[in-house]
Amino acid sequence: MLTLTLNEFSLDKFLADYWQQKPVLIRQGFPGFSDLISPDELAGLACESQIDSRLIYKQSGKWQAENGPFESYEHLGERDWTLVVQAVDHWSPEVASLVRAFSFIPKWRLDDVMISFAAPGGGVGPHIDLYDVFICQGSGSRRWRVGDRGNHRQFAAHAALLHTDPFEPIIDAVLTAGDILYIPPGFPHDGVSLESSMSFSVGFRSKSASDMLSGLADYLIDNELGGTLISDPQRRMHQHQGHINASDFALIKQQMQTILNDDEIMMNFVGCHLSKTKCELDLQALDFPINETELRKSLQQTDLIRTGGLRCFYLDDSISQGICYVNGERYEFGADCSATVLALCDEDNLSLAALEQGLQHAAFVKALTQWVNDGYWYF
Amino acid sequence: MLTLTLNEFSLDKFLADYWQQKPVLIRQGFPGFSDLISPDELAGLACESQIDSRLIYKQSGKWQAENGPFESYEHLGERDWTLVVQAVDHWSPEVASLVRAFSFIPKWRLDDVMISFAAPGGGVGPHIDLYDVFICQGSGSRRWRVGDRGNHRQFAAHAALLHTDPFEPIIDAVLTAGDILYIPPGFPHDGVSLESSMSFSVGFRSKSASDMLSGLADYLIDNELGGTLISDPQRRMHQHQGHINASDFALIKQQMQTILNDDEIMMNFVGCHLSKTKCELDLQALDFPINETELRKSLQQTDLIRTGGLRCFYLDDSISQGICYVNGERYEFGADCSATVLALCDEDNLSLAALEQGLQHAAFVKALTQWVNDGYWYF
Ligand SMILES: O=C(O)CCC(=O)C(=O)O
Ligand SMILES: O=C(O)CCC(=O)C(=O)O
Ligand SMILES: [Co+2]
Ligand SMILES: [Co+2]
Repeated sequence: MLTLTLNEFSLDKFLADYWQQKPVLIRQGFPGFSDLISPDELAGLACESQIDSRLIYKQSGKWQAENGPFESYEHLGERDWTLVVQAVDHWSPEVASLVRAFSFIPKWRLDDVMISFAAPGGGVGPHIDLYDVFICQGSGSRRWRVGDRGNHRQFAAHAALLHTDPFEPIIDAVLTAGDILYIPPGFPHDGVSLESSMSFSVGFRSKSASDMLSGLADYLIDNELGGTLISDPQRRMHQHQGHINASDFALIKQQMQTILNDDEIMMNFVGCHLSKTKCELDLQALDFPINETELRKSLQQTDLIRTGGLRCFYLDDSISQGICYVNGERYEFGADCSATVLALCDEDNLSLAALEQGLQHAAFVKALTQWVNDGYWYF
Repeated sequence: MLTLTLNEFSLDKFLADYWQQKPVLIRQGFPGFSDLISPDELAGLACESQIDSRLIYKQSGKWQAENGPFESYEHLGERDWTLVVQAVDHWSPEVASLVRAFSFIPKWRLDDVMISFAAPGGGVGPHIDLYDVFICQGSGSRRWRVGDRGNHRQFAAHAALLHTDPFEPIIDAVLTAGDILYIPPGFPHDGVSLESSMSFSVGFRSKSASDMLSGLADYLIDNELGGTLISDPQRRMHQHQGHINASDFALIKQQMQTILNDDEIMMNFVGCHLSKTKCELDLQALDFPINETELRKSLQQTDLIRTGGLRCFYLDDSISQGICYVNGERYEFGADCSATVLALCDEDNLSLAALEQGLQHAAFVKALTQWVNDGYWYF
């Protein structure tokens, strides 16, 4: 297992001084790091239609971007191109294992692991992200320059490529295998490959109020909640047709507010919404579904492994009832299952011991069997 | 102008005892009432594709419903069918004038005026609405039965027709021209035409929290508001991957809450959202647009008339800056225009005197000219 090595500082110091505040280069954060997937395997994934990928290159000095899936890479030549593949943690267990090294940040903040292969001279160009990222250097080397936060102009260098103007670097360093560059949102950055190289970006998502309110509205509609109409049996004689008076405005706001004040709705919404994945999961449903007896038998021999990228959460106020959220769905297994539900959400591998409590309850066994048959967990 | 006549009780009493509480028959609420549109004209409107209409009839004892536009009515025979047309106030100034009689309820609560023509025996069947309605009887007569609120079963008598089981009437009356039946949401009702008859339903809309939160989410996206991402630079070391802990849950809720706490956003959203119409407006843009001089000249001769169904609102905290909402759009004309903006939103007809203040301000004159050219108001 990969463990983050912080030579000069502790994780507490990283959180206090850098996280969401300023970029930092962690030299040899993963000593002895070697690529978790080969360039060839990465190129293979980018040929699959369910996987998001992009090729970025320069043609006669102009930036070009193409979306995958790709059929061949032969036309690209020796230099100045990059292949970027999203959510590779969904498709490769080895890549998924990289995520755990960053578990000092909760999983609901995680986005995915994006991997790039760059030929010498290749890079995606100077740009600004809205997300925190740990760029973990694999084979080869890249020169990374990071500028300070500020009023940087952004422009489309190509219809699908948002770039920023050249910037004064506050970090300018060559990364080699095992080095990690942390960059918070808003800091312009630009990496150029010195030789063919691989880079593993562990990215974090954040959410805007607008995202969350859209999600809440969809959640209410999908679950037929919040449907009660405003009622106003206390209405007084109204004088002016065009007037939305203060008491009506308050009534309208109050009705919306009841939803945000309803912790049951909000917990269920947050759990369901944050446990949805942005990119497709690699769900390999079993060709020959197993039954509960077979599940128990297999668990005696080996652990269950969670498929890469699957998101499972619980919240403080409902975990005691065994409530959890798996891939956008709410499950309630009861108080007697809460220890198992904790393990289900916190661990990547599930042993018979961890599942013991839940395996005594029919509803949990049924759900777990279904998850295994659907490919959420596999042996 | 139509004026509501409440023989036995006052408007205050109606609001205190009936509005949203219980149905009531107002005998001769409009003494001497005559149809605001003829059955033939109504049938003509139902041939237009922009207008929502339905035919409801029984065929061999089974309920049938068809959506317009219709090409002919010849196949319908003499009995047992109803033609229902939505939002006729948008298409007929005479029908639009009926709305003002109900201006003791604010316009943001109004939905539209739905009109039905029914052949003898015709009706839409026993059903329950989510809306308050004043059913104003025109020519002919109908027997109306209204049941009490309760746990009434609802079922699809036809794919497009939600009916309810037979009910015990608490009102059972024959309405003739000028009678008005008020029915709050939730009371089952059933009207059957005794002879060919016209009925004018002034309907009120209410909104659910789910409607309003969907509208808010769309408003934020359309106006690029609420885009700031959650930031968590205070984060402490996290232990359990699947845990959405209490402080993160509070952070997520708090971010959504900032939007509901922002009265500027909420006023603008409420104003824009409630001033949108459900059904299409009859906007007749001028073939030969007028300029500002011509507008002033015409106003010296005649009043401007608001097109039927157009919704214009203001709120207490922003009317002093001349802010109003017209058909889903926000306008800000400044403090010096607030008297004109009040008239604009409150009155159906705009005289030169009412507009005087605004006509001294270029921005208002420009907007008004545009509205007239677009057909929002006409001479
Ligand atoms: O891999 C690359 O070249 C780009 C990485 C990057 O910019 C990021 O992860 O934010
Ligand atoms: O006009 C009709 O027959 C139906 C009227 C009605 O049910 C209503 O307005 O709610
Ligand atoms: Co980046
Ligand atoms: Co009705």
